[in-house]
Amino acid sequence: MNSFTYHVPTKIHFGKNATDHLGDELKNYGKRVLLCYGGGSIKKSGLYDKVIAQIEKAGLEVFELSGIEPNPRVDSVREGAKLCKEHNIDVLLAVGGGSTLDCTKWIAAAAKVDHDAWDFFSEWAEVKDALPVLTILTLSATGSEMNCGGVISNLETKDKIGRLAKPLLPKVSFLDPTLTYSVSAYQTACGSADILSHILEVYFAPQEDLYMLDSFMEGLLKTVIKYTPIALNKPDDYEARANLMWASSWAINTFVTGGKQHEWSCHPMEHELSAIYDITHGLGLAILTPRFLRYCLNEKNVDKYVQFGVNVFDIDKSLPKMEIANKAIDELSDFLFNTLGLDDTFTKVGITTEHFKLMAEKACEGDTLHGFVDLTAEDIEKIFEMCI
Amino acid sequence: MNSFTYHVPTKIHFGKNATDHLGDELKNYGKRVLLCYGGGSIKKSGLYDKVIAQIEKAGLEVFELSGIEPNPRVDSVREGAKLCKEHNIDVLLAVGGGSTLDCTKWIAAAAKVDHDAWDFFSEWAEVKDALPVLTILTLSATGSEMNCGGVISNLETKDKIGRLAKPLLPKVSFLDPTLTYSVSAYQTACGSADILSHILEVYFAPQEDLYMLDSFMEGLLKTVIKYTPIALNKPDDYEARANLMWASSWAINTFVTGGKQHEWSCHPMEHELSAIYDITHGLGLAILTPRFLRYCLNEKNVDKYVQFGVNVFDIDKSLPKMEIANKAIDELSDFLFNTLGLDDTFTKVGITTEHFKLMAEKACEGDTLHGFVDLTAEDIEKIFEMCI
Repeated sequence: MNSFTYHVPTKIHFGKNATDHLGDELKNYGKRVLLCYGGGSIKKSGLYDKVIAQIEKAGLEVFELSGIEPNPRVDSVREGAKLCKEHNIDVLLAVGGGSTLDCTKWIAAAAKVDHDAWDFFSEWAEVKDALPVLTILTLSATGSEMNCGGVISNLETKDKIGRLAKPLLPKVSFLDPTLTYSVSAYQTACGSADILSHILEVYFAPQEDLYMLDSFMEGLLKTVIKYTPIALNKPDDYEARANLMWASSWAINTFVTGGKQHEWSCHPMEHELSAIYDITHGLGLAILTPRFLRYCLNEKNVDKYVQFGVNVFDIDKSLPKMEIANKAIDELSDFLFNTLGLDDTFTKVGITTEHFKLMAEKACEGDTLHGFVDLTAEDIEKIFEMCI
Repeated sequence: MNSFTYHVPTKIHFGKNATDHLGDELKNYGKRVLLCYGGGSIKKSGLYDKVIAQIEKAGLEVFELSGIEPNPRVDSVREGAKLCKEHNIDVLLAVGGGSTLDCTKWIAAAAKVDHDAWDFFSEWAEVKDALPVLTILTLSATGSEMNCGGVISNLETKDKIGRLAKPLLPKVSFLDPTLTYSVSAYQTACGSADILSHILEVYFAPQEDLYMLDSFMEGLLKTVIKYTPIALNKPDDYEARANLMWASSWAINTFVTGGKQHEWSCHPMEHELSAIYDITHGLGLAILTPRFLRYCLNEKNVDKYVQFGVNVFDIDKSLPKMEIANKAIDELSDFLFNTLGLDDTFTKVGITTEHFKLMAEKACEGDTLHGFVDLTAEDIEKIFEMCI
């Protein structure tokens, strides 16, 4: 059990009409706002007009960056940083899902430096400072609204790299579950797969941590498993959308991590997939996770799988341990591929064996992934093969 | 399900040697420190010397207020505020349990005003500002290290009043579970009763809230039930002390509350007991809570008791609802009075029927407590009678 520092000062307004606080919060951070968003669904939904009205009512000046992609690209970061410098922007407002939020956070950092934005990833250039970022979330998935991370893709170098940096933590996030009513069944399912993965990456660890955190993670897992089917069936179910939204933030805001220090496994593997194939992050994770868990299972770590199976899926604890473990993985697969209806193989999403070797090498940076179980490039290739 | 704002910017250093960060953190807040503590157990344990060494190493000047009482009194707040003004104090450091922390937080507020400290409670004088407070926790119980509340007693008026005020939130808290190794079995048990009560006051509510928060609370309850006996049996069990410590902070830092807005019930009742009898807060709560739950149980709210019994005490869910509910209360009583060994009646702790009427009137402020179930003074008297 390691020591840790916990510090998450992001202020959250949660609930219907959470964005009513937007103008008051924004004006604490300056006069010139860069509004960042994606493909324009916020215009269709009426959210855009609501945001603009709040900004105008607060007497602030607004500039815009639209068209931020899913798997956001470093080009958008560059474009946003340029706008910040040109217009002397004081504060950034991201409106969208994790991709828009991640991109906006890195714009906030890039606006403060003279070097190219990609240097943050290729050279690990220091992130000393960033413009303040506020976010309005429209998709429950990445947790970007309450953490200091962001993942950026570079299509030229075929890289997709995530990085944490304290100055990127949003100052205020507005979480209105009704804004996720219009999220498609497919994106809802992928979002939930992403949330589950965030929890499982921490839950399955080589070292024990605080029981209270494990029990919290089990509660989060049960929350996602209980409410995703409800949201799929009735997209405007407030209770379901609210639980998924708050669970998404807490799955990856560092609280569940406690003193754990191991590397994540499925995320680096998935980043290589979507760097080359540009598939939805949550879908890639869904396909990988059950195979990863099956590959890692052994006599030494079976107790963790038993805990997972008994506490999350209510599997009979009197069964033999290995049977419980395998049943738990079966239950997870059943949830992801039958209940959520996600594609269950690489083949179905157009991924072939062609780049397996390269992707495996990159996922472990040519060495070993020190995660739940140590994985070499060879191990990762085998996990990829299980996904075909 | 109501909307809410969540904002807990307190920075936590958790683990063995958490206080190694003390000097570095303190000097962010100024040069002149008022060290506040209780009866001197921190001198016996060596913590005092460690703290002074850190303060000196950071080049800061230290002043002291010692002798803060359990159920801290407004006289200590006045004395502390006077010291702050006399010595132009920049930052307060509380070292101790909830009483020391609560007192220090109110000193921080009182140092900023010209009026008497008791006006914050008798007149509800506005708390506009406070000196920064850092805390080193030595007892897992009140959660004062990560929230903005504090309870102060006035022996003259026989009042014990709790109040929340945002400026009182500690800036940094140092949570080293090894500092609780020396806590007596009795104080450990009372601390755990306090933590349980904080959770149950929120869990049993007239309105539904987020399932994910309920499941978190169930995890916290199970954490306290699992680890308190271990800590009683082996006071230096790190895992037990660490789980109890982090659970104590999260039981009452507003996260579990979500959008719930009902009043608490056992706490106002207990405050009246200890205002007159000066008994340990957690002990009063332990005696009251099972009676309160039994008194409130009815056909309309039985489902919450069933959820509690099944999820926390693993009671067979096929039993009749009322039976599960009563069994759950029995299990809770058994834990408090047999496993923890706390006194189970008012009589045993010297409380008689003498002030029941007065205490009941004051607990509901002469009107009705709008808690899990509405309670009039008459109801509260009946609950007191069940405790004899």
